[in-house]
Amino acid sequence: MHLKYGPAIIEGVSKDSALITRVKKVLLTEVTKYQEVQIVDTYDFGRALVLDGYIQSTEIDEYIYHETLVHPVMITHPNPEKVLIIGGGEGATLREVLKHGSVKEAVMVDIDGELIEFAKKYLDFMHKGAFSDPRAKVVIEDGLKFVKEEEPGKYDVVILDLTDPYGPEISRKLYGKEFYSDVKKLLKPGGIVVTQSGNSFFYPEVYEYVVNNLRANFKIVKEYWTWVPSFSYNCNFNTASDTLDPSILTADEVDTRVRERGVDTKLYEGNYHEALFKLRVIKGKK
Amino acid sequence: MHLKYGPAIIEGVSKDSALITRVKKVLLTEVTKYQEVQIVDTYDFGRALVLDGYIQSTEIDEYIYHETLVHPVMITHPNPEKVLIIGGGEGATLREVLKHGSVKEAVMVDIDGELIEFAKKYLDFMHKGAFSDPRAKVVIEDGLKFVKEEEPGKYDVVILDLTDPYGPEISRKLYGKEFYSDVKKLLKPGGIVVTQSGNSFFYPEVYEYVVNNLRANFKIVKEYWTWVPSFSYNCNFNTASDTLDPSILTADEVDTRVRERGVDTKLYEGNYHEALFKLRVIKGKK
Amino acid sequence: MHLKYGPAIIEGVSKDSALITRVKKVLLTEVTKYQEVQIVDTYDFGRALVLDGYIQSTEIDEYIYHETLVHPVMITHPNPEKVLIIGGGEGATLREVLKHGSVKEAVMVDIDGELIEFAKKYLDFMHKGAFSDPRAKVVIEDGLKFVKEEEPGKYDVVILDLTDPYGPEISRKLYGKEFYSDVKKLLKPGGIVVTQSGNSFFYPEVYEYVVNNLRANFKIVKEYWTWVPSFSYNCNFNTASDTLDPSILTADEVDTRVRERGVDTKLYEGNYHEALFKLRVIKGKK
Amino acid sequence: MHLKYGPAIIEGVSKDSALITRVKKVLLTEVTKYQEVQIVDTYDFGRALVLDGYIQSTEIDEYIYHETLVHPVMITHPNPEKVLIIGGGEGATLREVLKHGSVKEAVMVDIDGELIEFAKKYLDFMHKGAFSDPRAKVVIEDGLKFVKEEEPGKYDVVILDLTDPYGPEISRKLYGKEFYSDVKKLLKPGGIVVTQSGNSFFYPEVYEYVVNNLRANFKIVKEYWTWVPSFSYNCNFNTASDTLDPSILTADEVDTRVRERGVDTKLYEGNYHEALFKLRVIKGKK
Repeated sequence: MHLKYGPAIIEGVSKDSALITRVKKVLLTEVTKYQEVQIVDTYDFGRALVLDGYIQSTEIDEYIYHETLVHPVMITHPNPEKVLIIGGGEGATLREVLKHGSVKEAVMVDIDGELIEFAKKYLDFMHKGAFSDPRAKVVIEDGLKFVKEEEPGKYDVVILDLTDPYGPEISRKLYGKEFYSDVKKLLKPGGIVVTQSGNSFFYPEVYEYVVNNLRANFKIVKEYWTWVPSFSYNCNFNTASDTLDPSILTADEVDTRVRERGVDTKLYEGNYHEALFKLRVIKGKK
Repeated sequence: MHLKYGPAIIEGVSKDSALITRVKKVLLTEVTKYQEVQIVDTYDFGRALVLDGYIQSTEIDEYIYHETLVHPVMITHPNPEKVLIIGGGEGATLREVLKHGSVKEAVMVDIDGELIEFAKKYLDFMHKGAFSDPRAKVVIEDGLKFVKEEEPGKYDVVILDLTDPYGPEISRKLYGKEFYSDVKKLLKPGGIVVTQSGNSFFYPEVYEYVVNNLRANFKIVKEYWTWVPSFSYNCNFNTASDTLDPSILTADEVDTRVRERGVDTKLYEGNYHEALFKLRVIKGKK
Repeated sequence: MHLKYGPAIIEGVSKDSALITRVKKVLLTEVTKYQEVQIVDTYDFGRALVLDGYIQSTEIDEYIYHETLVHPVMITHPNPEKVLIIGGGEGATLREVLKHGSVKEAVMVDIDGELIEFAKKYLDFMHKGAFSDPRAKVVIEDGLKFVKEEEPGKYDVVILDLTDPYGPEISRKLYGKEFYSDVKKLLKPGGIVVTQSGNSFFYPEVYEYVVNNLRANFKIVKEYWTWVPSFSYNCNFNTASDTLDPSILTADEVDTRVRERGVDTKLYEGNYHEALFKLRVIKGKK
Repeated sequence: MHLKYGPAIIEGVSKDSALITRVKKVLLTEVTKYQEVQIVDTYDFGRALVLDGYIQSTEIDEYIYHETLVHPVMITHPNPEKVLIIGGGEGATLREVLKHGSVKEAVMVDIDGELIEFAKKYLDFMHKGAFSDPRAKVVIEDGLKFVKEEEPGKYDVVILDLTDPYGPEISRKLYGKEFYSDVKKLLKPGGIVVTQSGNSFFYPEVYEYVVNNLRANFKIVKEYWTWVPSFSYNCNFNTASDTLDPSILTADEVDTRVRERGVDTKLYEGNYHEALFKLRVIKGKK
């Protein structure tokens, strides 16, 4: 077997591994104020958004990442009305949040306004019109600054949809102890947070750093992960709350809430929710 | 971020994607009568066995593949005494099978005697002495031929630990309808089979071919998968039986059997077993 | 040192080596009736034309290839008026031929009309208007067929600017004994032919096949080569004639003819011409 | 066309390009006090020495580099008796120097004693016994220090066989103005120096820095280059002397000296010498 010659993208997997995946076109390579942005059309994954050499989401499998990030906490919360998203420039996290009939306001804060414009131009299948939903509010600002200045006690759910903690520089502090303390202040009583948490296999120390910082701020931290083909590794997540525990919902309870709120998904369902919280986290060499 | 110069291995992921992972040494590259065999020391995964350019198993994560292949069917069977393994030249599947106190005889059939000798020399951590267990019997023969000629109705469990259906040539027929019919004849009443099934995301058509061939021969076929880091994708499996259904065991029942048989694992447990059969299969583009 | 993540092109060097070079954009990937065509913007070489995974010519170094292909035979011929080019879809060979004031008609025959349209659209710096020179005539036809049907004894110089003999399928026969015999018939007395000849280091047998086929048809065959950075190897050429020998021209004679014909070059000059025919051909392992 | 899966080496070409070449074995990867050393068996080039990810020399083509480095200055000097080599740990430069019957003493100074031991163990074809020639003297020392402390006016020829100026850290200062001044002091009247000079195409600024530093110290600096397949680029060299100019030797004079001194070569000869000094240096983008 072999790799066909031609255009490809070399994507970071770990510091010692990379995925080479063939591309049809590279539509965009721009360096914004914050990061290098590329839009590529791949053979295996369709159109993909690449930031600083890491695939963020692709046409074919973005639903795995976005459904798995958003719905476990949204469903665990009995009535999420106000939701804050930090990051998520493609608009797909916003799209998933707005599927919940209970949502009255979804605020999305991304530092990179240029990225959002590229997403609007090249990545329809990500946002699917979410940016123009009347319940959506997009703020171009540094998430670190936003969480310090936003009115406390306002949100039911906070979703941290950030680039990897070992990836582009701009995301590092958004996995820190102080940041999580600021995030906690924004929650209403009974609120819950979720953060994507990078990869526990290739970066076990960074992953533990994230989990420990959450645990320093919240009573209940629940780890889960799923496999995202275009990342060529699993993606870890953590929920954090003082009161809510997603691992105690049954498949039936999940399916009932999904139905009641009119949430239409490709992958997420009661059984999937249950399975996510039964799988142990997998770690590689330190 | 970047990929450091130096030795690496280009490993097949799909026909349009490959993983490049850095290696310290390439200890062996031999072409046996059946396949190209390489033993490499990698940075991310420790020592690895590579057949025809595909990583088969590595020091760091082989337990994920081998425990997930072996234990679901072994535990689902109430008393597996006679077990047949087709493939599995590294000896790690044999090792896992022999952990079950119930096992009286484990026959392993691999076509490639040279490969087994290489495994004995370079891959201690795979077989861990399993080849010299008095219950183990190693047969160097073509699996296709063996299943036609072996005494019928002899085995409780058959484990098909083969190279991918889209990988090296020698494995193709071992996923075919006729082969499964031959395998079925070897089972005792109440027996069960498991086969690794390649990858459903990158090769959905090949995967469906495997599942359909199993369904043509067995009443109960159960799909499951796990993520194997060094494959850089998930690995699919299927159980097949006329009577046994692994998806109805509870976590407690699994944990009890594991304890009673004295099976010592790193990953496999009741919760993991339950989760495996709750996750939907993920498919990419056809 | 390291390779930065992001888009790149994997380019064939030999059957066991490839060059990975980073790209900014992939502007075009189309499969024409004859070959896969890609136009990419690279960091090291500027804009590049890629056919079936092999870089054909790039903005930064195409002058090396095209000047070295065209001028040695054009200058060796005392008065080239009628010139035939087979291949050369980018138009750069045509551009170099037309620099010779002596030329009255330059016929360029390329099988792939779509490729020529892509060149016109994306590769200005290659043709630089040569397609609209009144002395130029472009024929979209199979070179094999053209040389069989064209009026004999018509051309002073024939330039074979083909994809590699070990590269895209469509070029194989254009290095064969029969083809060279047909080409010879098209020459006026005192005419001369040149062909790019692939790479003698990585493909010594194919290279020798080409030289032998020329020798079977012409009395004087002269080998030469230059280094083309974007090929990541040297590129071999051969002149063939019954009367003309480029290796006997002195640097002064070359420089005089260049001046008289008003040929403006970046690299080609008398010293370069002399050096080309003093270097031995370099061959690797067979 | 395609790249076969399996072990390979990713070798630096420029900061935006790398060569991937398939390997059979990686025999050694060690980090010495000074650099990362790898010995690999490649398909295209046979056994290769790799320092910090850059191929230094290979079984199949090392003669191109070593003959082109050594013989132009050795032949230009009318009677080289005492020769100093800085670098050249593989022993092949020493081997070429000792081919000249005129040589009475050849001192080789390399900082990395471990590297020399690896060369003795794995790279016979490089040194071919040169280390045990009674005229050879190996000194394990920093070249920078050696040239400051060595007795002045002792050498006829100095050969700088160093890793690239843009490659491993340890070589940077060995291309500096001060170093060349120290080297000059070691020459007898009528002496000559040669240095490998990296690559003028991919690193034009570094190359010009080297040439300028030579020109600041010597009256006659002559540039030349050859193509080295395993470097996947050409390799530049410069001679420097206050009296000797290699570009004025005719092919006949060269061939006579080669014969008189009993120098047996694969590539170097009068015509090659002449051609080397007729080719212009090729530079890419800055």
